[in-house]
Amino acid sequence: MKYAGINTKRFHNIDRQVYNDGALKSKTKELMGLVSSLVLRCDDCIMYHLIRCREEGVSDKELEETLAIGLIVGGSITIPHIRRVWDAWDNMKQNYNFPKGKNKYG
Amino acid sequence: MKYAGINTKRFHNIDRQVYNDGALKSKTKELMGLVSSLVLRCDDCIMYHLIRCREEGVSDKELEETLAIGLIVGGSITIPHIRRVWDAWDNMKQNYNFPKGKNKYG
Amino acid sequence: MKYAGINTKRFHNIDRQVYNDGALKSKTKELMGLVSSLVLRCDDCIMYHLIRCREEGVSDKELEETLAIGLIVGGSITIPHIRRVWDAWDNMKQNYNFPKGKNKYG
Amino acid sequence: MKYAGINTKRFHNIDRQVYNDGALKSKTKELMGLVSSLVLRCDDCIMYHLIRCREEGVSDKELEETLAIGLIVGGSITIPHIRRVWDAWDNMKQNYNFPKGKNKYG
Amino acid sequence: MKYAGINTKRFHNIDRQVYNDGALKSKTKELMGLVSSLVLRCDDCIMYHLIRCREEGVSDKELEETLAIGLIVGGSITIPHIRRVWDAWDNMKQNYNFPKGKNKYG
Amino acid sequence: MKYAGINTKRFHNIDRQVYNDGALKSKTKELMGLVSSLVLRCDDCIMYHLIRCREEGVSDKELEETLAIGLIVGGSITIPHIRRVWDAWDNMKQNYNFPKGKNKYG
Repeated sequence: MKYAGINTKRFHNIDRQVYNDGALKSKTKELMGLVSSLVLRCDDCIMYHLIRCREEGVSDKELEETLAIGLIVGGSITIPHIRRVWDAWDNMKQNYNFPKGKNKYG
Repeated sequence: MKYAGINTKRFHNIDRQVYNDGALKSKTKELMGLVSSLVLRCDDCIMYHLIRCREEGVSDKELEETLAIGLIVGGSITIPHIRRVWDAWDNMKQNYNFPKGKNKYG
Repeated sequence: MKYAGINTKRFHNIDRQVYNDGALKSKTKELMGLVSSLVLRCDDCIMYHLIRCREEGVSDKELEETLAIGLIVGGSITIPHIRRVWDAWDNMKQNYNFPKGKNKYG
Repeated sequence: MKYAGINTKRFHNIDRQVYNDGALKSKTKELMGLVSSLVLRCDDCIMYHLIRCREEGVSDKELEETLAIGLIVGGSITIPHIRRVWDAWDNMKQNYNFPKGKNKYG
Repeated sequence: MKYAGINTKRFHNIDRQVYNDGALKSKTKELMGLVSSLVLRCDDCIMYHLIRCREEGVSDKELEETLAIGLIVGGSITIPHIRRVWDAWDNMKQNYNFPKGKNKYG
Repeated sequence: MKYAGINTKRFHNIDRQVYNDGALKSKTKELMGLVSSLVLRCDDCIMYHLIRCREEGVSDKELEETLAIGLIVGGSITIPHIRRVWDAWDNMKQNYNFPKGKNKYG
């Protein structure tokens, strides 16, 4: 971030705040961030939101239903990304101290 | 739909069921359908899900927070679509009998 | 095209030739142009290739199977475009002298 | 904008400032906004930046070379949008008082 | 697939059947799957369909003409993917027992 | 390129010429190629244009302002690509003989 100008910094600031609790809960918002990243097929973005979903206590079934919406909206081109989601999810579940979502898209 | 083959019909069938109540509520799923359609910038899809969101009792503030996520994820190219969402939303609120979401993307 | 520079003109020239008969027939290539335009959701491009498909004698069933591939690959966001394809196709079939595909994307 | 929350307002604020004069001139930045909007195929965004380009004194030739880059990067699916650019450009040139770019994507 | 719900399983089922022989041959449909994956720039999807194209007996020239359509429709951003297609194609030709396309996007 | 047909070769030829000096300088055009590649999220394309930008003498601040436009237009899904840009830029600056941009997307 050493090169980031004022507009870039402001954008990152909004990017953090938009997922905070409000009329909708942070958990719901992270699922929205996940499904948006899925239909746009950005693996780094997907993984960031997946970690946040785990931190927010998303269940297997909630995750599956969210991915199913992304699959139907975005089509078969989302399939490779969905496979990587489940591999990462399994990995997170097997490791007690899953990585913290502090360094976005890091 | 008179030309629709078996695979197309099956797809439409899944497309209806994926937003049904489950581990996540239909309301949450329709908001996910909305934000996915927004970042992919499909106006017809957005309008379908917007009607469904209204039917599910989504509030102004819940809608705004959902659109803000789409705006941050998808960038300024989503702005024209967000303007059209609010115009349609205002219109729905002023008309008691808003159109039913039966004929998808009709 | 009065503003078109040399590179733009050259591009348009390739754009015409790439659908000509070769190892694959022009009909197959126009179906490929159609499905590509569908998953990228460009209505003007879709309509151009649809006219060319009609000129090449594509059948209802061949069209349906092509659109089904686009639907599965591209997801439900392609549905509004597929509806417009069938409306236009019906219209072409009812009018003996369907428009010629000379003026691309015109 | 009556529904816009704090994050949305902040985004719009950045969206205005990012095209201001800096190490690169506003004219160059508007051309970048134009070519980005073209490859993402957002007509409203394209038209906003086209008006700004005219305000910044972009020449026919500078516009053509910019669109040619968008055409090569984004492919033939950009062609319908490029046609609409030139129609709007001709219209702007024939009307002395072209519309001011105040109401973004309005 | 251990997490896959009913809708996801149904989608995968359609995804298999849509490329089967019908009014159009499976070979033509796989070329359509390939060009769609190319313009959407999904490497895993491209590789899956490339293997299927090889199984269906697609020739070098048929492949080249298909990729040329994708290149013109999708623009220069498809170039890196096309390079990877030819590298994989050469590799398939040099190895008699090329991988079977059973595990989709695996 | 051994498989490239005549249309593919012609496309590559245009792809080279469209960034040459004209009404706009090559440096400006490479920045346009960069921002277009960024909003379309093609890492190989981004890296090609980044090398060309370095060859054209683009400054840190010019690069930052260009990336900020891409970030605002394309949204948070561009963030992982922007991170990779800065890592590559730092690497180029530390190595006197940075790679020449001869082999496009190579």
